[in-house]
Amino acid sequence: VHRLAYTDVEAEARRLLLDWAYARGYTAALDDIGNMFIRRPGGDAAAAPVLSGSHMDSQPKGGKYDGIYGVLAAFEVLEALDDAGIRTKRPIEVAVWAAEEGGSRYLQGCMGSQVYVDPGKLESMQRNVDAQGVSVADAVRAFRAKLPDLPKRALNAPVSHFIEGHIEQGPILQATGNTIGVVTGIQGARYFQVDVVGDAAHAGTTPPSQRKDAVKAAAAMITALHQMMQDDSDVVRFTIGHLDVTPNAMAVVPGQVGFTIDFRHPDEAFLTRMGDLFQAVCDEHAGPCSVKVTQVRRGALIKFEGLVPDTIHDASTRLGYRTMRIMSGAGHDARYLAGVCPTGMIFVPCDKGISHNEVEAATPADLAAGARVLAEVLVALAQS
Amino acid sequence: VHRLAYTDVEAEARRLLLDWAYARGYTAALDDIGNMFIRRPGGDAAAAPVLSGSHMDSQPKGGKYDGIYGVLAAFEVLEALDDAGIRTKRPIEVAVWAAEEGGSRYLQGCMGSQVYVDPGKLESMQRNVDAQGVSVADAVRAFRAKLPDLPKRALNAPVSHFIEGHIEQGPILQATGNTIGVVTGIQGARYFQVDVVGDAAHAGTTPPSQRKDAVKAAAAMITALHQMMQDDSDVVRFTIGHLDVTPNAMAVVPGQVGFTIDFRHPDEAFLTRMGDLFQAVCDEHAGPCSVKVTQVRRGALIKFEGLVPDTIHDASTRLGYRTMRIMSGAGHDARYLAGVCPTGMIFVPCDKGISHNEVEAATPADLAAGARVLAEVLVALAQS
Repeated sequence: VHRLAYTDVEAEARRLLLDWAYARGYTAALDDIGNMFIRRPGGDAAAAPVLSGSHMDSQPKGGKYDGIYGVLAAFEVLEALDDAGIRTKRPIEVAVWAAEEGGSRYLQGCMGSQVYVDPGKLESMQRNVDAQGVSVADAVRAFRAKLPDLPKRALNAPVSHFIEGHIEQGPILQATGNTIGVVTGIQGARYFQVDVVGDAAHAGTTPPSQRKDAVKAAAAMITALHQMMQDDSDVVRFTIGHLDVTPNAMAVVPGQVGFTIDFRHPDEAFLTRMGDLFQAVCDEHAGPCSVKVTQVRRGALIKFEGLVPDTIHDASTRLGYRTMRIMSGAGHDARYLAGVCPTGMIFVPCDKGISHNEVEAATPADLAAGARVLAEVLVALAQS
Repeated sequence: VHRLAYTDVEAEARRLLLDWAYARGYTAALDDIGNMFIRRPGGDAAAAPVLSGSHMDSQPKGGKYDGIYGVLAAFEVLEALDDAGIRTKRPIEVAVWAAEEGGSRYLQGCMGSQVYVDPGKLESMQRNVDAQGVSVADAVRAFRAKLPDLPKRALNAPVSHFIEGHIEQGPILQATGNTIGVVTGIQGARYFQVDVVGDAAHAGTTPPSQRKDAVKAAAAMITALHQMMQDDSDVVRFTIGHLDVTPNAMAVVPGQVGFTIDFRHPDEAFLTRMGDLFQAVCDEHAGPCSVKVTQVRRGALIKFEGLVPDTIHDASTRLGYRTMRIMSGAGHDARYLAGVCPTGMIFVPCDKGISHNEVEAATPADLAAGARVLAEVLVALAQS
């Protein structure tokens, strides 16, 4: 699936979903950042709706479950309630959050959900541009033109609860034989840039005693950092995924190395304590080079607690699915909704934990189980 | 200096040197690969000439001493012999070897000296192309058109001796307070490509136990290799200068790393013994990844022994210069001439050992000392 945010391909996918929605008599609306809502009315028209959904955009050459599963599972629930003749007090809405996939068409992720809960971010998000220089403002304008039947919806309209179904994008459910993950939160993250500075020199002539070899120093730092982050409990997520060498020539002692650290953990205190040691560990292994560790960004830990995850857990166990509580390693739109309403997520297994990849896979039985649990939860919350 | 091989800029430099040569009544010739020879006749016209020189091409944005110093020092000797009224038995020729700088306009280095000593290489060298697709054959044709006054000279004409003056391109003479380096040879070298293969995975979700992190593995290998190559005698030249990560994204566990090894040493047995251990050391630190070490190229150790270096040493000490024997870390045209005649090199200090760089520097006094020694050596050999 190659369905980048606000593209014709995403508009076609939205249109297909709208066709199904209109066939059921549901109404739909689009807001200023391109979020779409499909509404099944409740008995109390004044009550704030329960929202469920995720996103329809994908990473470049991504998988066919990430995001879209949560949208289709929620839509399937609406149809199932119709078929079963179940009325709810609150309206239930399928939410399609816009432009969730960061580092894709746009660098920024979760633009739709962020702007929905904080309309003050709209203008800055509208100024983001893609690689062709197309701003979000222009992309949304063109996108809306392809969906002219949709009335405008206000940002930040009240929501009673939000539940997001999603593939786990990690291997834990499959490895432990669980079908349903009750997501307890989204782990905190700290992102760092490490810059190692030595001296470029001739590889054939410069004696060891006179070298300031930035790759040698960086390798020692990376090895020491990985040793420090060794974790037999398998919880730490510590990744050095990007590394650049200057001048990067075989016959030149490397003068500079830059590398990133992506460090995530469910315990904020651990993130703080360990992350604050990175500069000292790098200094210790810098040899004749110098090194500077800079925190680029910190993402706070988000917890999903109380009614929503408890309702998910009860429904899943009552239906007989093997169920576990699980922290999300990846970010999701639910991170932002959690700031404005009781929120939870339902994870289903994905094969080997592989995601953002064409081989992303999930079984029909597991996907159906997630939708089944979601139906129970939406009904319970929509009656509240 | 930005004087790439066979360019108009190099043709202009050759023309300037030719003007000076004609003013002294010397003759000149050009061979099929673009080497140029300026001849001061000797008493015995049938005797093979003593050659001295180096190259006039430079690295991109290179220094103003590398190569050209050896050419101008040799030319200065011819003029000094005229001025002093000294006749020699053998002719003395200034040799300007073509296209010495590899990894520059052409990837291949020392094309002129290689073809001179082995004309069988001419056709394959002529097929080399630069980044614009210009073959060496076409470049030499255009180059010759700018020097139409030069008669053609045969490749592989007999040479009695070859002496190359050059800046050290390393820091040893300066660091030890020596003025003249009597080069004992060009160290051997082995070049390797190391490919580490793991699995790309989501940095936020993949537990440590399920990762195959190619950067983590490569860092452990690099650290272990550097530890193994630790050398308190300061002789080993071990460099990991080029490293590429795939996909090289902050939030992705890196799936592949490729890096190079540039390993040089004056002892062939050491090169063999240690280089043959690289695969085992990398295997030992591969963790869950796999690794393949491939030797890309091996350059044999070249020794300069006997008459030429001994004559250099005697002349330098007799003139009162602080003199040391020194192995060349870098390759030079003398490597190839050594295959066909007694050969030696004279090194003079360059500041901090920096070369292939605009800040490359040498003092007038040191450069003059090298030329002074060269004069003594050329006279001695040309009388033999």
